[in-house]
Amino acid sequence: MGISLAITFALLLITPSTSSLPPHDNLLNRARKVFSPLPSIMGSKENPITPEKVTLGKTLFYETRISVDRTVSCAKCHIPGMYGTDGLPKSIGNRCKTNPRNSPSVLNAAGHISQHWIGNRASVEDQAKQALIGPTSFGLPSYEEAERILRGIKGYRDLFEKAFPNEVEPVTVENFAKAVGAFERTLVTPSPFDEFLRGDENALGEEQKRGLRTFMDLGCSTCHNGVYVGGGMYQKFGITKPYWKLTGSKEIDEGRYAVTKKEADKYVFKVPSLRNVAMTPPYFHDGSVEKLEDAVRIMGELQLGKTLTEEQIGEIVAFLKSLTGTIPLDALILPTLPKN
Amino acid sequence: MGISLAITFALLLITPSTSSLPPHDNLLNRARKVFSPLPSIMGSKENPITPEKVTLGKTLFYETRISVDRTVSCAKCHIPGMYGTDGLPKSIGNRCKTNPRNSPSVLNAAGHISQHWIGNRASVEDQAKQALIGPTSFGLPSYEEAERILRGIKGYRDLFEKAFPNEVEPVTVENFAKAVGAFERTLVTPSPFDEFLRGDENALGEEQKRGLRTFMDLGCSTCHNGVYVGGGMYQKFGITKPYWKLTGSKEIDEGRYAVTKKEADKYVFKVPSLRNVAMTPPYFHDGSVEKLEDAVRIMGELQLGKTLTEEQIGEIVAFLKSLTGTIPLDALILPTLPKN
Repeated sequence: MGISLAITFALLLITPSTSSLPPHDNLLNRARKVFSPLPSIMGSKENPITPEKVTLGKTLFYETRISVDRTVSCAKCHIPGMYGTDGLPKSIGNRCKTNPRNSPSVLNAAGHISQHWIGNRASVEDQAKQALIGPTSFGLPSYEEAERILRGIKGYRDLFEKAFPNEVEPVTVENFAKAVGAFERTLVTPSPFDEFLRGDENALGEEQKRGLRTFMDLGCSTCHNGVYVGGGMYQKFGITKPYWKLTGSKEIDEGRYAVTKKEADKYVFKVPSLRNVAMTPPYFHDGSVEKLEDAVRIMGELQLGKTLTEEQIGEIVAFLKSLTGTIPLDALILPTLPKN
Repeated sequence: MGISLAITFALLLITPSTSSLPPHDNLLNRARKVFSPLPSIMGSKENPITPEKVTLGKTLFYETRISVDRTVSCAKCHIPGMYGTDGLPKSIGNRCKTNPRNSPSVLNAAGHISQHWIGNRASVEDQAKQALIGPTSFGLPSYEEAERILRGIKGYRDLFEKAFPNEVEPVTVENFAKAVGAFERTLVTPSPFDEFLRGDENALGEEQKRGLRTFMDLGCSTCHNGVYVGGGMYQKFGITKPYWKLTGSKEIDEGRYAVTKKEADKYVFKVPSLRNVAMTPPYFHDGSVEKLEDAVRIMGELQLGKTLTEEQIGEIVAFLKSLTGTIPLDALILPTLPKN
């Protein structure tokens, strides 16, 4: 016992200090204080997920007949095969109307503090509901019209009844929102970075690990942190100078000021999640930047006041690629839409 | 042996004549002379199907970046979950342009004599190719522009090289067409009617069998026959009177006359395949009729000069529902699109 204690003490003495730990061991511990792996689903007390709701929600996600010109579905601007975005600077909705901002991915979105770039949607359910009457999205004149259309497609009744049993009239806009929300709450994309956070230090390559370290050292993770590597707070875009000086934005977007009318919220946006960011160009709220390398460089200068080296940019981009995840197979299997 | 022969002879004697056979037995024999079950794939000597081509073709089928406004993919007008159609009277292409005609399903289409309502596309490959520069579809200014875009999306090179090995430059419009065509040649939807034709007489219900008989007795199968229950010939729409008198069409479409400039081809269209017809409203080349019952009634009057009874219409619609097939699962699993 005395010998054992002595050995332990000796081992403690030779344990290297934090700064001389093997780089990735140290890195994993640091990363775990800042980031967390994805949950299996993004649950909600208000909208418990059931298979029946998810089935209905997935079907509704592809439904075009609930838009004023019958061409817009959720999937129009959130194409699963494009990682829940549409590849456009700004989305095109009904009757070719341009949306005010870039389409944010629906993947891993339900866990954010709010939805949309300026946080003017409380949840994925709220977003799905309001999209129905959004002038540039589905463009319906009213929720009543949405319900009239859904009730007119006979095949939906059975799906709604199964998803919302024991309701006198289950085919409602509220239930549309809950069903689409339930589906979106299943859209998590576990990535090599999650494997790393769970302890597999070989899940990231050496350059990716250097990038992760740089990402934390520079201060990117001050805002891009947590489960979603972003999505958890609001922040002014352009701390060191106006963002449009570097992004080349054609219009100046006042961001969250439109929601709160507070001067302090001018040019404030939700910090976007960086999950799957390598797969979702173009970048920023107005899709003004096409290349991820440019987006990283601009962020360094605008937010941190730092001119990043090409090496730093390369490392960070390599790290960001470790956030590219796997879309759940079930989400990729197209539903058959009910007939009129 | 002598006894055995005698029994056989006796059995032959008591075998009922054709006219007194059980109705559906007789019906199966009649149907087999007019219709054939679907093949497993719709092959082509010019474009042999390989898994690599199909994988590339499915990916390209969902690609929006090859349209002039980056919103149009093949899947925009041929939504797999809507049985390869878009549910609109006439499709909406790039920049909200209205296409001249209703979107025909891509399911089971490769086996038709030609593509499009007026047969102005020789094959699914030809259709895919020409769509790239179609003013109301993808709207690109040239094939060169299509190739420039495809070559600019780096992730495609590997997919094209695998699909077209040993070619110096595989990323071409010709190979785009072959890949999309190969994918579309896999889009067969076997249905209860195919099971019936293969000998399972219980695959159709009694009303469906009566409908099949009525369909043949009335003469519908004079044009809607073969593997695709249509798709095999051209025919004037409106034999007994101008079609627009009954369909309520807002514009008069001269049909195949636009292709051949022959007077005899005025108002001539490709006889549409009736496979999955119950799932693909609205009907006719201009989507002018919403309900299948109305479409059947109108066809009886326009093409056969017969006023169908409600019972006949109901039976025929029941039979047509037996043509609703199963979309191959692989076709429903969305591909991930390569990034820029």
